[in-house]
Amino acid sequence: MNIAILGAGGIGKAAARIIEKKKEVKIVATCDKRGYAIDEKGIKPRKIYSLGKNESVAKIGKSSSDAIGEIIKKSNVIEGILITLPNLPNEFIPSVAKRFLKNGYQGAFSDPLKRTQAMKIMFEMHTFFKKTKSTYITGTGATPGLLTAAAVLAAQSFIKVDNVDIFWGVGIANWEEYKGTIREDIAHLPGYTIKKAKSMTDEEVEALLDKTNGILKFHNMEHADDILLKKIGVVDRLNQVSVGGVMDTRHAKKPVTTTMTLTGKTFDGKTSSHKFMLGDETTMASNVLGPALGYLKRAIWLKENKIYGVFGSTEFMPMVVR
Amino acid sequence: MNIAILGAGGIGKAAARIIEKKKEVKIVATCDKRGYAIDEKGIKPRKIYSLGKNESVAKIGKSSSDAIGEIIKKSNVIEGILITLPNLPNEFIPSVAKRFLKNGYQGAFSDPLKRTQAMKIMFEMHTFFKKTKSTYITGTGATPGLLTAAAVLAAQSFIKVDNVDIFWGVGIANWEEYKGTIREDIAHLPGYTIKKAKSMTDEEVEALLDKTNGILKFHNMEHADDILLKKIGVVDRLNQVSVGGVMDTRHAKKPVTTTMTLTGKTFDGKTSSHKFMLGDETTMASNVLGPALGYLKRAIWLKENKIYGVFGSTEFMPMVVR
Repeated sequence: MNIAILGAGGIGKAAARIIEKKKEVKIVATCDKRGYAIDEKGIKPRKIYSLGKNESVAKIGKSSSDAIGEIIKKSNVIEGILITLPNLPNEFIPSVAKRFLKNGYQGAFSDPLKRTQAMKIMFEMHTFFKKTKSTYITGTGATPGLLTAAAVLAAQSFIKVDNVDIFWGVGIANWEEYKGTIREDIAHLPGYTIKKAKSMTDEEVEALLDKTNGILKFHNMEHADDILLKKIGVVDRLNQVSVGGVMDTRHAKKPVTTTMTLTGKTFDGKTSSHKFMLGDETTMASNVLGPALGYLKRAIWLKENKIYGVFGSTEFMPMVVR
Repeated sequence: MNIAILGAGGIGKAAARIIEKKKEVKIVATCDKRGYAIDEKGIKPRKIYSLGKNESVAKIGKSSSDAIGEIIKKSNVIEGILITLPNLPNEFIPSVAKRFLKNGYQGAFSDPLKRTQAMKIMFEMHTFFKKTKSTYITGTGATPGLLTAAAVLAAQSFIKVDNVDIFWGVGIANWEEYKGTIREDIAHLPGYTIKKAKSMTDEEVEALLDKTNGILKFHNMEHADDILLKKIGVVDRLNQVSVGGVMDTRHAKKPVTTTMTLTGKTFDGKTSSHKFMLGDETTMASNVLGPALGYLKRAIWLKENKIYGVFGSTEFMPMVVR
């Protein structure tokens, strides 16, 4: 798999760390806001994850004010694209994907996108992706992603699903490694918007975290698990799906065990719940990027089998990447 | 979905009960050893599940010493075939599937097959299925099936999987409803073979159950979860997967919670376990036939998309059947 990683923040670097342990994946391109690197023979993952907090991909490649444009020029060497860009605003990631296709790229994409509104924009491009013979799987992280897919499996035992409850625990020893992700999460807090969260300085984020002793609690998050599960018929209404969680930005230990609970009615009239629980020792990096790579391999497989379009992570099993 | 159900024992009847609650499924054919029923307009599920213990499908259709042969003659009305025949001996179900294809049937199959040896025979027919433009998904029950697919999801978070442990609990109020299934399970006990289990009279089964107060305990069962997980690279060796369980043949309440535990190493050097747990109130019928129908819909989808061959339940997500 010759892949590009768009975005080299905490999530992009974590992807590089995982790929370092995978024999079948080669990173041939990567970029951030300020620069890009392209190498058909492969960019060593270490080069990417060793970049310092304030260093750009430009350091291992070239500077550019249009890094995406530079990668598009060489996109013929890319089989699959892993998108690890911060999705602020909602239109950003969909517009990047569209730009690749408009410039003649035919390939596969995987994107651990979270927001419902952003995913709606992605699904609107289904016909365009079909026409351009490309395949995009969206919502390929942990939630939506791994846990949402587990809900599809759990739903199999029931005639009617009452609700799907996803509650995650995340522990991050040092929030500065995941600036983009944490700002995206802050945008889910009452009184905040995407715009407001994005415009916060690091000091302002720090001040917010100080008030809560580094703990952020989330309820009824605008996560796209709901539309992904409604799209394929696991639920009839979006409000049957709820996503919440607790993030500790000062300790690596998870404050709660991440659990997907699906409750439904069986054909013989019983109410019961299946559960999928993630081991406490596994990090957000493992649970987001592992699935995102597995889904990228699936997206490449789908494209090879002439199945084009924009699909949710609930529609296919991710593949094992070795 | 116009489907055939081959086999009308406990498992076939449970399928009919579930299908009664599904708008998009129509049973157009069914059979057992002694007879068959075919109706393009649909056979009422109630007719099938209301058959008494010693009654044959012949009662609602016609007698025949070659019921499968009669269904094959009319197979042009069948989109998908759900196989709920007891698989004793190992060659039986594969030979039935092969017979359909040899007689010109092109379609989709789902089979909650359990035994490793039987599944190996199925996978040997991959090329034949490809040639004849048909799609077969095997191991589509609970284990292998639902729980094995959950292992594929769980594996996504890890660089290396140490082991997959599936331990099930089943409670059956009245074993006589599931004669075939229980004989298949008895064959897994130390000192028993498939041949020996099949030749046991009901009285002999009763006598065996009396000795253990109706409880049967199983360890290291020859379940095909191992080859399904090895085939797609979740594990390297078959002995990394173990399946066991406890069956109470006298109480509907499960003696233990059915749990899939996957333990692995993360990219950052941690050892951890993800778990998938089935609600205690859900029965074998729900957890086997729900997934089997979901996979049948997926098999039909794959065939429509020109993806032919014999696949494991670990290779695709089952679809939601409404």
